[in-house]
Amino acid sequence: MELKIGLLGCGTVGGGVVELIRMRADKIAAMTGFYPIITDVLVRDLTKERKVQFQHERLTDQASNILDNDDIKVVIETMGGIEPARTMILAALRAGKHVITANKDLIALHGPEIIEAAEAARCDFLYEAAVGGAIPLIRPLKESLTANEITDLKGIINGTTNYILSKMTESGANYEEVLKEAQDLGYAESNPASDVDGLDAARKLTILAGIAFGAKVSLDDVEVKGIRTIAASDVAYAHELGAVIKLLAVGKDDGKSIALEVRPSLVPKSHPLATVNDAFNALFVHGDAAGDLMFFGRGAGSLPTASAIVGDVIENLRNISMNIPSRFRTGPVASRAVRKGSPEPLRYYLRMHAKDQPGVFAHIASLFAKAEISLETVLQKRAHDNQAEIVIVTHETPSAALSSIVEQLTARGDLLEIKNVMPMEKGDA
Amino acid sequence: MELKIGLLGCGTVGGGVVELIRMRADKIAAMTGFYPIITDVLVRDLTKERKVQFQHERLTDQASNILDNDDIKVVIETMGGIEPARTMILAALRAGKHVITANKDLIALHGPEIIEAAEAARCDFLYEAAVGGAIPLIRPLKESLTANEITDLKGIINGTTNYILSKMTESGANYEEVLKEAQDLGYAESNPASDVDGLDAARKLTILAGIAFGAKVSLDDVEVKGIRTIAASDVAYAHELGAVIKLLAVGKDDGKSIALEVRPSLVPKSHPLATVNDAFNALFVHGDAAGDLMFFGRGAGSLPTASAIVGDVIENLRNISMNIPSRFRTGPVASRAVRKGSPEPLRYYLRMHAKDQPGVFAHIASLFAKAEISLETVLQKRAHDNQAEIVIVTHETPSAALSSIVEQLTARGDLLEIKNVMPMEKGDA
Repeated sequence: MELKIGLLGCGTVGGGVVELIRMRADKIAAMTGFYPIITDVLVRDLTKERKVQFQHERLTDQASNILDNDDIKVVIETMGGIEPARTMILAALRAGKHVITANKDLIALHGPEIIEAAEAARCDFLYEAAVGGAIPLIRPLKESLTANEITDLKGIINGTTNYILSKMTESGANYEEVLKEAQDLGYAESNPASDVDGLDAARKLTILAGIAFGAKVSLDDVEVKGIRTIAASDVAYAHELGAVIKLLAVGKDDGKSIALEVRPSLVPKSHPLATVNDAFNALFVHGDAAGDLMFFGRGAGSLPTASAIVGDVIENLRNISMNIPSRFRTGPVASRAVRKGSPEPLRYYLRMHAKDQPGVFAHIASLFAKAEISLETVLQKRAHDNQAEIVIVTHETPSAALSSIVEQLTARGDLLEIKNVMPMEKGDA
Repeated sequence: MELKIGLLGCGTVGGGVVELIRMRADKIAAMTGFYPIITDVLVRDLTKERKVQFQHERLTDQASNILDNDDIKVVIETMGGIEPARTMILAALRAGKHVITANKDLIALHGPEIIEAAEAARCDFLYEAAVGGAIPLIRPLKESLTANEITDLKGIINGTTNYILSKMTESGANYEEVLKEAQDLGYAESNPASDVDGLDAARKLTILAGIAFGAKVSLDDVEVKGIRTIAASDVAYAHELGAVIKLLAVGKDDGKSIALEVRPSLVPKSHPLATVNDAFNALFVHGDAAGDLMFFGRGAGSLPTASAIVGDVIENLRNISMNIPSRFRTGPVASRAVRKGSPEPLRYYLRMHAKDQPGVFAHIASLFAKAEISLETVLQKRAHDNQAEIVIVTHETPSAALSSIVEQLTARGDLLEIKNVMPMEKGDA
């Protein structure tokens, strides 16, 4: 039996969906009893040349041709952005259509509203593709790890920044150079703010934390620091310290409160996340019964994202065939405080420039000693212009003590300038 | 509403299940509508002291107290082994009980028979814990990656051998020493054959390949080589070559035939599998749309295995509450030839001892040249007793050409002795 699908948006991801559904239509029919056909595709520009070859699919620039078409049972949204995606998805759900999307921005900001609308309509609203591209993350968290209290999430969930940091590590080049190259190759947007400032990762973390911790969290709960301040010298020092720099999204739930953070970190090379390069994503999950788990794969791209979307389509069609759409209702949501920042002592990397004169180093060392912060590694090198470059890695230090020492160091602007501060992860999972 | 569960077997894993179900009973009730209670536990020895504290659970040494008890709706089997587990599981299914198990041996050998019995009884038969312990593998393959043709599986799926190889790598010690230590610590059985000869990994590969490739495969289809031949010097040479030695389970499906193999391999340190140490497991999966994926976590242990089993219990209770047990029927099974051995050219590592006399090395080199096998790396060191130790890494070589050169080298027993031959993986995923 044919099942008609409407597609909202036909860029890179939408094109992949058209292709993959066509490739797998027979297999999907055998698995679900429904032969899926994309009948209508909403695009902004009907005349634009597209990579994907359309066959029976009708192009339209009128959303109503999909949303008001009673023959269309399933809507796939790949436009991205908040509006008009939100309005269209809500309209589709109200019309009794199942919705599948990869729209992380929308779910991070309006997830509860849309999920409520889906439950009211007894429709599926599935979004495995919204975080981690092809990597199964949402379903394992919702179905496989349900016997656990999840206490930790830690991951590389933005491909653009991971590409930039990987290239900086490989080539020793500067941030600006590599960003320019990434933009030329289409891996970074011409306005890269959402990626390089960590906002995209923060949105994804919001989605993951809500599911993993079973709690209400919002984008405002995430402390966010991006990668613009990472210098080639930080990458080189990280290497000297046996580590690589990664933009990590970190969530912790200690049962009382939840802490959420996106920030560049030094990851020792022995840690599995250190081998996650280029456009790959990976998420570490710690469950109280399961222990440490990691999920790794392509976080973006046409077919990898389509893999997750079409996987959701197959789940949806199976659910329709068994008359159980919307089978997992929202679980009980625990109310726990959400606070920003690192909740536990971490090692910290500090890079600073200091006047190359007698006594400066001793002064810095005495400040750390007074604050009772012990040092794991100290590197001092000659920088330019009579300046010494000093890199310090502390032993595990509470974040309050770290903030205090950073303040004291900053107050000595006559002697030194802090160039960068980052946490350094433990060596193993 | 209370839901009564019978537990068959109460060793390490069974004890973890008792504990975890008790810890999560309220959460499970909130998620599924059923408050799970283990009422009866089958044990061999009623008098044995056990770590787990029993409360309301009744111990019995009569299986009929569980299998013939109509109040018990769900049976969890953690005895392991083929019989009496097989007979009991079939009896439970025929009595309309849902069955959850971690029994990889049983599923590898009798999976189709049991799955058929479960479908006939419209009961769930779930076994996420059978492969990879806590790591979600079966469900992602069956539900998340359904839009893909899976072409490759590659993983570390036996914890005992990975522990032994990790320790050999860390300490430089011999296989026998480390095995002894692992046995003393309880990480290896007193008869370690099933682990160190690769049979346990082969059974798990059989289960994974059947699901991932949607094909009928049997244990006999797997070419198996264990780790007994790995010497401390192999580990040291691997290090010199920038690699570590891992026991890999490898499955390939090129659409025409399936090849299955378990064998020690050199894994370059840049490959994510190289960082999987000790009792951790990891599985690489390549899907034609998703690309490379990796799943990593604890492959064994009481609570990690219980995490997967209780996750299955929760799925089962959700299915019962929606009246959809056995919701995923066996998909269409493709008929493809299954053949042993590496299906594609690989790099190979060869270590041999040769007489330390003029011309021997030139002779070896000429054999490789005649066979048109080009060499990537050659290391020659003085071994004992006027013997030279020669290590060769070939460029990518078809397995037939490799077998032929190994045969030719072996024929020159007067000059040299081959000590080990292993494939060497590519540097990235």
